[in-house]
Amino acid sequence: MLETEIEYNNLLSKLGRTLRPNAIRKLTQMLGRSDIISLAAGAPSAETFPLEEMAEIASRVIRERGAVALQYGPSRGLGKLVEAVTDIMRARGVDRARPAEVVMTTGSQQGLDLAARVILDPGDVAMVELPSYIGGIIALHNAQAEMVGVRQDDGGIDITDLREKIDRARQEGRRVKCIYTIPNFQNPSGVSLAADRRQQLIEVADQHNLLIIEDDPYYELYFASQSRLPAPLVAIKPSRVIYLSSFSKVLAPGIRTAWVHAPEPLASKIEIAKEGADLSSSMLDQAIVAEALSTGLIARRLPDIREFYEARCRAMLDALEKGAPKDARWTRPAGGFFIFLELGADVDAADRLPAAIESGVAYVPGQPFFVDDAGKNTLRLAYSKETPERIAEGIARLCRLL
Amino acid sequence: MLETEIEYNNLLSKLGRTLRPNAIRKLTQMLGRSDIISLAAGAPSAETFPLEEMAEIASRVIRERGAVALQYGPSRGLGKLVEAVTDIMRARGVDRARPAEVVMTTGSQQGLDLAARVILDPGDVAMVELPSYIGGIIALHNAQAEMVGVRQDDGGIDITDLREKIDRARQEGRRVKCIYTIPNFQNPSGVSLAADRRQQLIEVADQHNLLIIEDDPYYELYFASQSRLPAPLVAIKPSRVIYLSSFSKVLAPGIRTAWVHAPEPLASKIEIAKEGADLSSSMLDQAIVAEALSTGLIARRLPDIREFYEARCRAMLDALEKGAPKDARWTRPAGGFFIFLELGADVDAADRLPAAIESGVAYVPGQPFFVDDAGKNTLRLAYSKETPERIAEGIARLCRLL
Repeated sequence: MLETEIEYNNLLSKLGRTLRPNAIRKLTQMLGRSDIISLAAGAPSAETFPLEEMAEIASRVIRERGAVALQYGPSRGLGKLVEAVTDIMRARGVDRARPAEVVMTTGSQQGLDLAARVILDPGDVAMVELPSYIGGIIALHNAQAEMVGVRQDDGGIDITDLREKIDRARQEGRRVKCIYTIPNFQNPSGVSLAADRRQQLIEVADQHNLLIIEDDPYYELYFASQSRLPAPLVAIKPSRVIYLSSFSKVLAPGIRTAWVHAPEPLASKIEIAKEGADLSSSMLDQAIVAEALSTGLIARRLPDIREFYEARCRAMLDALEKGAPKDARWTRPAGGFFIFLELGADVDAADRLPAAIESGVAYVPGQPFFVDDAGKNTLRLAYSKETPERIAEGIARLCRLL
Repeated sequence: MLETEIEYNNLLSKLGRTLRPNAIRKLTQMLGRSDIISLAAGAPSAETFPLEEMAEIASRVIRERGAVALQYGPSRGLGKLVEAVTDIMRARGVDRARPAEVVMTTGSQQGLDLAARVILDPGDVAMVELPSYIGGIIALHNAQAEMVGVRQDDGGIDITDLREKIDRARQEGRRVKCIYTIPNFQNPSGVSLAADRRQQLIEVADQHNLLIIEDDPYYELYFASQSRLPAPLVAIKPSRVIYLSSFSKVLAPGIRTAWVHAPEPLASKIEIAKEGADLSSSMLDQAIVAEALSTGLIARRLPDIREFYEARCRAMLDALEKGAPKDARWTRPAGGFFIFLELGADVDAADRLPAAIESGVAYVPGQPFFVDDAGKNTLRLAYSKETPERIAEGIARLCRLL
């Protein structure tokens, strides 16, 4: 399997509007071919998984603590892991983080789903970035929210546009309830929210009494060469923020272990919603992650992981520099997995995808990431999966085509 | 932790109606004490977990197939496991089961949640057994269904009452959409649906164009001494049934691995709903279960597991026979985890719980399992967790109190 399923399945259904069915069929078939360089996959590279250490940890937690690790567990999460995550939240700037504010989830996708179900009534408005993560859009959509897109630039969400869009929605009598943002190395744009805008975003939320859903799976994946990450929104004002982060990118995503940090009353509601949704996340996965934290395995590997992705990002930026069409523009991420490419206004990235795959390179067209259906001339390039050499070759193939 | 959280948390909140807050606090504290014999826990005994074999399997799948077992996976489930589950469905009588009808879920609780979200609109009516599983009731409630309770006796759901209640609801202009049933060794009643009623239930569903949600986690846990299990409803008419089953009770529940079998168009909708809910279930858990199936570990252990629970059931029945109050009645399960006890009409089982715990035995009062709030004089006794000796002692304590 090449892709995070959610993106591809939804992408394919969205592409159904633009592509002929036989093109989609062909595309799906071709994606299975190993000679295709995938710049589409939003998944971490399996090369970063510490197989030997995790195998050892898994067998140890089952042998020594199997009566807990294989049994039903608390909906809120394995106690030891909830404590460890509370420490992580303190390290991320939430000085007074408490376990009562933490709920472990089956990946951050579940956190998005539960948060949306808990805070939104049908017809409530959620402000979302243009473009934004498809999984987040789907969670909001499933809670029957209406979404209003807000412009983004290289400094993240445009605060002026945000204020205007909120005002307009309110004037139309709509109930604006929350802002969904991915402040660090956003999926799909790769941009990060500037420090001053973080402060302003909190001010907007305060002024309009909104909650912020802060989706931060890439927090640890900043590049060593970059300046220090500004504090997450939750550190500025915890009472305004439902914060989500994950072990998917720093350990392994098949171990579906992520967390929500929210004000205690909301955390309780999320916990109750989780009971109804799946009782609890995998106890084995949680026990493995708790052990990988307490033995220092995760912390020890972070510098290498950052370097791993930075080298791949650099390879992609260099290749774009060398071969991209004159009128193309792209983002320069300071971490994470993605570069977003904007082509000439008349180019349709979805239209070009079958030809790209034919020539051996895959990407994700940008339009499905835009709730306002803009972005036809954009595409997302992931540097997380392939080697630097294949990334350079993939970009070269793509540039020849464009 | 003593209990399946969902039952206890919800039980405690429901008990809030009957018990004083300080009684609930005391009760929650006392449940942590090891000298209390818990006939409350609906969880399998950790003694049945094959720790050594699972430790070996876990380390092997990570070492040999970690690039798949630790990576994002298809929302529908690990391909190999979907295939194996399709074989299981054929073995359960669905001769033409196909992988396209199967979706792996994070425990059956997720299957209930997704099925309810997919088939129900707010205000739709779901027919549920009196009593029924609290987790199922919550999933239906979260999908904003209205629930109508249907009488049950020793042969399972009362078909005459079901017909009457459906007719009445229709006459009131309500949209009856589905029947939620646990046909084998029901939680909490322990009763099973008689073979002739299974046929009749399908006829009712056909006649009124209803779906049946068949929740069957205990399928494999029949007692060797009992006669053969009638075919599940899904085997009689697959097109009418969303069937759920699980590896929680035959392997381990902390490995959150269960499945839904549904007509293909519904399975597709459930798959899409699952993408939004958690992208996929734990890939490691699924890889472990697939291996435990293909090596024969699960099949090999079933006879022992059945014997294990039958001995405990027998111990509980014997103790009830010996000490239960004259006016008490109880069910005689042919498998599963539960006996349901009905006391004299004037006894309130929730009222008696604090005193029972004080004297060292815990149970679950029956009322929260009834959507019509009947069952004040009932309680659920689980024989799944304690040893036969402690079960006998626990029942003796309980009988002295009653």
